[in-house]
Amino acid sequence: MISVEEARARILSGLAPTGTEIVPLSAALGRVTAEPILSRLTHPPQDVSAMDGYAVRAGDPQPRLVIGAAPAGHPFAGRVGAGEAVRLFTGSVVPEGADAIVLQEDTDRDGDSISIREAIRPGQHIRRAGQDFAEGQMMVQANARLNPRHVGLIAAANHAWVPVRRRPIVAILATGDEIVLPGDPIGPGGIVSSNSHALSAFVRACGGEPLLLPIAGDSISAIADAASSVRHADLLVTTGGASVGDHDLVAPALEGVGLKLDFWKIAMRPGKPLMHGSLGSVRLLGLPGNPVSSYLCALLFLKPAIERLLGLPGAAPRPIRAVLMTGLKENDHRADHLRCRLTEAEDGMLQAEPFGRQDSGMLSALAHSDAVILRAPHAAAVEAGSVVEVLRFDSLGA
Amino acid sequence: MISVEEARARILSGLAPTGTEIVPLSAALGRVTAEPILSRLTHPPQDVSAMDGYAVRAGDPQPRLVIGAAPAGHPFAGRVGAGEAVRLFTGSVVPEGADAIVLQEDTDRDGDSISIREAIRPGQHIRRAGQDFAEGQMMVQANARLNPRHVGLIAAANHAWVPVRRRPIVAILATGDEIVLPGDPIGPGGIVSSNSHALSAFVRACGGEPLLLPIAGDSISAIADAASSVRHADLLVTTGGASVGDHDLVAPALEGVGLKLDFWKIAMRPGKPLMHGSLGSVRLLGLPGNPVSSYLCALLFLKPAIERLLGLPGAAPRPIRAVLMTGLKENDHRADHLRCRLTEAEDGMLQAEPFGRQDSGMLSALAHSDAVILRAPHAAAVEAGSVVEVLRFDSLGA
Repeated sequence: MISVEEARARILSGLAPTGTEIVPLSAALGRVTAEPILSRLTHPPQDVSAMDGYAVRAGDPQPRLVIGAAPAGHPFAGRVGAGEAVRLFTGSVVPEGADAIVLQEDTDRDGDSISIREAIRPGQHIRRAGQDFAEGQMMVQANARLNPRHVGLIAAANHAWVPVRRRPIVAILATGDEIVLPGDPIGPGGIVSSNSHALSAFVRACGGEPLLLPIAGDSISAIADAASSVRHADLLVTTGGASVGDHDLVAPALEGVGLKLDFWKIAMRPGKPLMHGSLGSVRLLGLPGNPVSSYLCALLFLKPAIERLLGLPGAAPRPIRAVLMTGLKENDHRADHLRCRLTEAEDGMLQAEPFGRQDSGMLSALAHSDAVILRAPHAAAVEAGSVVEVLRFDSLGA
Repeated sequence: MISVEEARARILSGLAPTGTEIVPLSAALGRVTAEPILSRLTHPPQDVSAMDGYAVRAGDPQPRLVIGAAPAGHPFAGRVGAGEAVRLFTGSVVPEGADAIVLQEDTDRDGDSISIREAIRPGQHIRRAGQDFAEGQMMVQANARLNPRHVGLIAAANHAWVPVRRRPIVAILATGDEIVLPGDPIGPGGIVSSNSHALSAFVRACGGEPLLLPIAGDSISAIADAASSVRHADLLVTTGGASVGDHDLVAPALEGVGLKLDFWKIAMRPGKPLMHGSLGSVRLLGLPGNPVSSYLCALLFLKPAIERLLGLPGAAPRPIRAVLMTGLKENDHRADHLRCRLTEAEDGMLQAEPFGRQDSGMLSALAHSDAVILRAPHAAAVEAGSVVEVLRFDSLGA
């Protein structure tokens, strides 16, 4: 059995970013840039007014003659001479000759002339050309996941299209004679597939493209055929059948179609049987069949793998600190992940209350938990009130 | 001018959740349930084995005769009698007569019989029928935003379809003669539209359906026509033209087609001109034209409005604490929102470094900031090292 950290390193090893795809700006949210995005223009393009008011020369005597108006988008064609002013609005280009903007509310207008009630500082209320950014300037780095502010910045930099990483294709194969799709007829001893649907949603949340395969029964040929149908995928994720029982057929089935097995057991609970290998250019991640094990393995291994394929670091999910509300016994040799509830204390500190029952078959408990408490191999007993590390599901998109 | 809190309360007032839409399970991630989701079955449906091993009667003497095997999905038809065992696998139905599972690795098999090396506790390694959940049990409450674990649980509860709130339709109208779409020809004094693209992405991140309208020039009829075209929307968001300058045409244009104006000025920086009203059944939110003002108003007002339309509370974005790295002067009568960088100290505490330049026209600074520091109206000066509240963009989906 290998450690969680070694398993992750081996899964990430050699995973290269996917190719580049061009998407319209309106589809760029959440995608990862494949190249740096440079500005195609300077912004503001010229000196512009930051306020509604008048463009003037700071040093001139009162009053000033208003010689025109220039709404945003309609620059004043002439020049502001001595004792002159031009009416401007937020975003209007500052006309030649002017060196300051006075606010409309600081002036008194009398016919065609204005008197200014406040002292004028040269340059006041002018946004200088290029103050926000210049042509050629880096707007967004490569390998950045785009948020709505990035999208606005890319628009302002005059890009209608964005080069992003193709979403990694993650084929998902549920195996087992007892498994049926939701709503389909259920035979004796049958249960409804849940892992593959949770995984599919999780892949989507990570930025991958899930490809949900038909359920494969407990048959070597069904599993082999399914795997052979997804040679174009980046990852093949199986659930169930990854252990060593007589009916754990994933490894033998895939070996028949060329699987190079890397490892199939990790020192972790829940989730011991985790299989890793490759089928030609497709990486295989064989997850356990228990819903909690399957989901935690996805969080710890599949998410970093998808991120690495997107050109992101693919780091381990980042833990945060919480105060333990109930003491825990010492741990054995397997890294443990205890489902818990989080609450927030008055001082803002998180408090973690582990569930009494940690059965890895309890999907409802997983769905109703907020986090898992991380327990290192051979960790000593910890008392209530100690600070522990937790993986918080909502902040990890899980 | 009204306060930020009063403005939000008035915007949320009377906003009712959208109707219900049925989506396939595969499209349910991130949607908000319109009804409680109850389980359509009991899980496990019968007592099942939690491990690979043998079903036995705990009290019987050694050895035991193996009378059959029952892979998951293929229940054993007979009964386990005195001195008998049935080979089971994880998820196999426990046959009648048996009251415990012994692990395969705790047995020695000799032909058709097994000897068990460990003591047997009645009920061991059996997952009881309904241990995870029972038919009719609440799986997911109404008004919950679905994460991947919810999706798995809904699948396990045998639902292929999920009733969710229709995404609120948010029409977005950028106004201004100087504005063009990215990639389109740019006239003298023209700039590329960015607000509407950032807002469109933000609406999507909040769970709404953005409807990006063609840019309306500075013309009463263009603005009125655009507004009249979206009578089916839930919200109409305008950017620019919401102030009081001669060229701020949004209010007059919309008043001509029936706008009932509620307020148009709030005590906030950046973002003073924020207009709120209604056009028939469409709520109007008139955002400022400055990109930073526009985006912060979206975070503070539009996001709660979309959430309320989704059946969620629509609470104010939740601040977190950070240590201020540079002192701040006392604040005036307007709530301020200072763009800052966040870093994490060794002890896990966040540190907020406000940008020296807080110009609301600086889109690049907004895009490269991590959070805004909240400054209440009339807040006293604060020294470096004080704890302040910040709105962190990434955790708010912004």
